[in-house]
Amino acid sequence: MSETATALVDRMLEGDGRALARLITLVENRTPGVSEVMRRIHGRTGRAYTVGLTGPPGAGKSTLVDRLTVAVRKGGETVGIVAVDPTSPYTGGAVFGDRIRIQAHTLDPGVFIRSMATRGSQGGLARATADVLRLLDAFGLAWVLVETVGVGQTELDVVKLADTTVVVLVPESGDAIQTMKAGLLEAADIFVVNKADREGAQRLLTELRSMVHIHREGQQASRDLDWEVPILATEAANGAGVDELLGAIGRHRAALSAGGRLETRRQARRVRELRTLLLTELRRELDQALGPGGALEPLLQEVEAGRLDPYAAIEAVRERFRVAPPPA
Amino acid sequence: MSETATALVDRMLEGDGRALARLITLVENRTPGVSEVMRRIHGRTGRAYTVGLTGPPGAGKSTLVDRLTVAVRKGGETVGIVAVDPTSPYTGGAVFGDRIRIQAHTLDPGVFIRSMATRGSQGGLARATADVLRLLDAFGLAWVLVETVGVGQTELDVVKLADTTVVVLVPESGDAIQTMKAGLLEAADIFVVNKADREGAQRLLTELRSMVHIHREGQQASRDLDWEVPILATEAANGAGVDELLGAIGRHRAALSAGGRLETRRQARRVRELRTLLLTELRRELDQALGPGGALEPLLQEVEAGRLDPYAAIEAVRERFRVAPPPA
Repeated sequence: MSETATALVDRMLEGDGRALARLITLVENRTPGVSEVMRRIHGRTGRAYTVGLTGPPGAGKSTLVDRLTVAVRKGGETVGIVAVDPTSPYTGGAVFGDRIRIQAHTLDPGVFIRSMATRGSQGGLARATADVLRLLDAFGLAWVLVETVGVGQTELDVVKLADTTVVVLVPESGDAIQTMKAGLLEAADIFVVNKADREGAQRLLTELRSMVHIHREGQQASRDLDWEVPILATEAANGAGVDELLGAIGRHRAALSAGGRLETRRQARRVRELRTLLLTELRRELDQALGPGGALEPLLQEVEAGRLDPYAAIEAVRERFRVAPPPA
Repeated sequence: MSETATALVDRMLEGDGRALARLITLVENRTPGVSEVMRRIHGRTGRAYTVGLTGPPGAGKSTLVDRLTVAVRKGGETVGIVAVDPTSPYTGGAVFGDRIRIQAHTLDPGVFIRSMATRGSQGGLARATADVLRLLDAFGLAWVLVETVGVGQTELDVVKLADTTVVVLVPESGDAIQTMKAGLLEAADIFVVNKADREGAQRLLTELRSMVHIHREGQQASRDLDWEVPILATEAANGAGVDELLGAIGRHRAALSAGGRLETRRQARRVRELRTLLLTELRRELDQALGPGGALEPLLQEVEAGRLDPYAAIEAVRERFRVAPPPA
């Protein structure tokens, strides 16, 4: 790790927000030093409680996050906000929303805000977000709210990083419901119908209750927690229902903690993370082996020319892939 | 390879269509013997010319494929048809369409028809399709038409298996155009506006010409072939424009062959295939290493418990991943 990164970590751990911001940039850029930064902060992580909020664009998630932040701050606890927008380029919507927020919380040292937008691969965004959440955790923030736009695979990967996942919909998202991925329903710990004063809110609430009920019946055997997914109505614009949402998050947290399930979930997350990192590493190694001068380049050339069948090639190298145990 | 599979390959290579059908089923089911079947037929592949047709549901691709088949058969050459539907379960639409077709071509021994639908992972479907195309090739069919429904990643992976890719649209697919992935535009060797007697056909043709022109300008430097993507109007239901489409396919084939680009494309395809197979193999090996009794299980447990940071774990095993060259 460069001298600078070491110094940044030390300053960040002492509470320097600007050092934190610069470390996040290192992580976003996938700087080679990231691995050592993360190893260095490891012992300081595991205390923050992470809430993920996801849902279609225009559902009012940002406003809801702001209201939640105000509610948490009333209790004196610190809040980190990460807005992840996989659909927007770096200088797109996320940054704009960010600016509005910074105005609202700019004078509050107990709130740290960061937005992240698409950089390179989508898998990379979820990966970078995981590391950013750990930075905020090590920084000492009590709560981290991570907000994603959309309902695709990347968003799902991101909300899986959270301890409690809130899916936010609006009466207009009736169609989104119809095509809602089973994965999202699976991920939701709490449903929120925001802009609940609008037409169609009651119907959406009813539909969601029915969906959750059917899903719950289907999951009876495999459910790891006795938790009835609440379906809440909010009007983030005027703050209605926000305290109830914070209450539901608190109850979910308590339910997770009581059953030892919070740790189980975090364990599963760490295993997923290890697997992803290992696969990335293997892919990199494979690309090198197939590249110019690589161990598999001659094999690749045989296959490229059609002289060797790909399956025969696999047989030839299969034995070379065995992963040895780490040195004692 | 089991005795049965060996016998099936022998019978298939002698022209037995039922043996071919059974081998396709083995491939679809990812039977362990697939690898050896594919190695055994390798020397007999590389002669069929493969045309991929893709586009949104309802664009009339099946009818177009049928008309193309009739046109090719007039010239006396044999045709294999593979209909891939990633959006449908095994007993869904693809099989229904298949039945209609079988009625039309059932008496023609020069036509072989097979439909494939979602089984397991989507990546697996593209993989299985690649193997099925090789079986049809080894069987000795002169032309293979592979048809996919939809415009997603799986469809894109499938059309990349073809020598010539035809993207089929209808006047109603105006919206699909707006959101058309750059990848699909990149993949298209020929555009077809089917149901060209409907309202909006002229506007779509104009839009496509403009899109293709802009894309072509952008690709000026990197283009590997001097080929102006034709944009054709067809009415598959009454056969209008079908001969012109077959003519355009023939011209594309000639352009590819003349420049040595057909072989270049096929080489690139074989390399992609090798890479995919290697990654699958690595992933399987990794899962085994992380599983019960695996070489990395102790490491995984440390990470799971939070005692070891995932990045530190990666450092510990990085050296174990080196891919050695194949034995001489």
